[in-house]
Amino acid sequence: MSRFFSKKYEALTPYTPGEQPGGRAFVKLNTNESPFPPSKKAMEEAAKASERLQLYPDPTCKRLTEKMAEVLGVTPDKVLMTNGSDEILNFAFMAFCDKEHPAAFADITYGFYQVFAELNGVPYEQIPLNGDFTLPIEKFLRLPHTLFIANPNAPTGLAISLSDIERLLQSNPDRVVVIDEAYVDFGGQSAVGLTEKYDNLLVTGTFSKSRSMAGARLGYGVACPALINDLNTIKYSTNPYNVNAMTAAAGYGMLLDEEYTRANCKRIIATRARVKEALEGLGFVVIPSLTNFLFAKREGLSGMDYYLKLKEKGVLVRHFETERLKDFNRITIGSEGEMDVFLKATEEILKESEGVLL
Amino acid sequence: MSRFFSKKYEALTPYTPGEQPGGRAFVKLNTNESPFPPSKKAMEEAAKASERLQLYPDPTCKRLTEKMAEVLGVTPDKVLMTNGSDEILNFAFMAFCDKEHPAAFADITYGFYQVFAELNGVPYEQIPLNGDFTLPIEKFLRLPHTLFIANPNAPTGLAISLSDIERLLQSNPDRVVVIDEAYVDFGGQSAVGLTEKYDNLLVTGTFSKSRSMAGARLGYGVACPALINDLNTIKYSTNPYNVNAMTAAAGYGMLLDEEYTRANCKRIIATRARVKEALEGLGFVVIPSLTNFLFAKREGLSGMDYYLKLKEKGVLVRHFETERLKDFNRITIGSEGEMDVFLKATEEILKESEGVLL
Repeated sequence: MSRFFSKKYEALTPYTPGEQPGGRAFVKLNTNESPFPPSKKAMEEAAKASERLQLYPDPTCKRLTEKMAEVLGVTPDKVLMTNGSDEILNFAFMAFCDKEHPAAFADITYGFYQVFAELNGVPYEQIPLNGDFTLPIEKFLRLPHTLFIANPNAPTGLAISLSDIERLLQSNPDRVVVIDEAYVDFGGQSAVGLTEKYDNLLVTGTFSKSRSMAGARLGYGVACPALINDLNTIKYSTNPYNVNAMTAAAGYGMLLDEEYTRANCKRIIATRARVKEALEGLGFVVIPSLTNFLFAKREGLSGMDYYLKLKEKGVLVRHFETERLKDFNRITIGSEGEMDVFLKATEEILKESEGVLL
Repeated sequence: MSRFFSKKYEALTPYTPGEQPGGRAFVKLNTNESPFPPSKKAMEEAAKASERLQLYPDPTCKRLTEKMAEVLGVTPDKVLMTNGSDEILNFAFMAFCDKEHPAAFADITYGFYQVFAELNGVPYEQIPLNGDFTLPIEKFLRLPHTLFIANPNAPTGLAISLSDIERLLQSNPDRVVVIDEAYVDFGGQSAVGLTEKYDNLLVTGTFSKSRSMAGARLGYGVACPALINDLNTIKYSTNPYNVNAMTAAAGYGMLLDEEYTRANCKRIIATRARVKEALEGLGFVVIPSLTNFLFAKREGLSGMDYYLKLKEKGVLVRHFETERLKDFNRITIGSEGEMDVFLKATEEILKESEGVLL
């Protein structure tokens, strides 16, 4: 920290992104990326956009916003496109929280919520998940706080029902409820439809998972037009051209090919079922997942040990060293071939543990 | 404003980007874009990156940062790449200003400084430029504030000298001085070299002007490693993947072709001289410019009138309706052909003013 750095950020601990290995070619199951490339249409649109990069992008992302609205089944005035869903989440912390309006989220959830709260000087409560990692809805009902709920949740993979979301929305109509649907396309139920009925709901989404565009940075928010207006006030005071022309074009191309996205999700879901069964066969406890990852542990094998031994064998998964999570690892569902390598490595690790574990 | 919007932004007036005309094909001289497409190398690199968009970008932008450092003649630990230079400017307001450390900038300068100050709850002073639009250096020397100085300045096109920048840096070593060099490649002198000597200097730059990449959103900051570390703390608490993979690749490609950039700047400088002379021949007062735009007015022709009449004729320039600027228009230097259209339209407007003006 330099002597010039504002004291208000003295205690700020930035988010730690997943490892990006250089050099050695790892089987990369640590950042919940898609194993499939983006649609050819996305690449074609991006290439076209790259030819006229000398011009500023359309700050309203009109063409993309309209297409996104069509795909989601809402009107375009209910949609805001952002530089990844991290940006819309930060905007929501800025717009709908402050010293008088604290935030609340689960103790085990997307780690960035806490960072956004601290960045923006927003007081926050972290509500402990139940022992089985399910969300204690009753505890959230009673809070006056702006709520941030990843649904399905990460890194657990568990989801809450739409009727529970409605209970949250109804129990306090004077607070905003943010439902972060980064992983919804892998079996979850989207709350986007509820934005027609509730003016206190913001649903966020990303192109980084089911739409194979993590590298492009594209996210979005869906809410009633009044909330979208507020978020636009933040956007136009922060970075009016937040979404670059190539990403907007690629996103549009991707939305022209929804069949490809749906087919990829089906493949991930099928692979997930197979890997879960295989891991259970090897003695793992695997949390039932509605996402593109599994959260798993095995008695006798510490989470850190498993992580390190997989890494030695060229397979990267995500390990969290916090108390409630340290027995587990989060394993992204990659391609069939990648998961074969992962399962083979896992079997070897169990065998190498002096036969104790198999 | 919805009833949920934080009161702290009640008075926030977002930045207004330049018009992005839809439909009719305008000669677009209103947002200081380059008339030249990006280098073929930029497009090739972007296309390659678009094929593996399913993977997150490198949050450190290693390859691009190293190339940028090489081009600027500094070490990579002194460079931070951002989502446009708007992002690094906002980061600087966040990192180096707060309630106890107000900001100061000219009354006539990049309009976003004021928005960033208000967004971040930073008190600020706007120091009036002299009557001839030059910067009153003496007034800035006496302030304890964090300084934001566009050099050359917009929309005037005027620059201050490196020795004046050194006076600002020396007069108060306990404040940060931000030199915004968005337009420096069109004849200005860069302060990047001074970052070796002063730990209170942050220089910002953009790929939107001389490097023909406004659509890609790429900016950067150069400072001593301690300041860059502070800015990284903000970045990793806001949007670790702020620069997407295609933009990082395009930026790298662009930096492989510095000769192209230099040749384009030379062409703009030559066209600027020709257009300035032509406008002066038509009775305009034209501020001497070291940028890719001219700031001009003509007696008997109101700034708004001239703007509207040019628009009628298919030429867009930028008009500011504030008191000290309203007689002027800011005219981007486009291609030779575009400037011929602009000059012809200007002559027609003068003739149509019932011969009064010619």
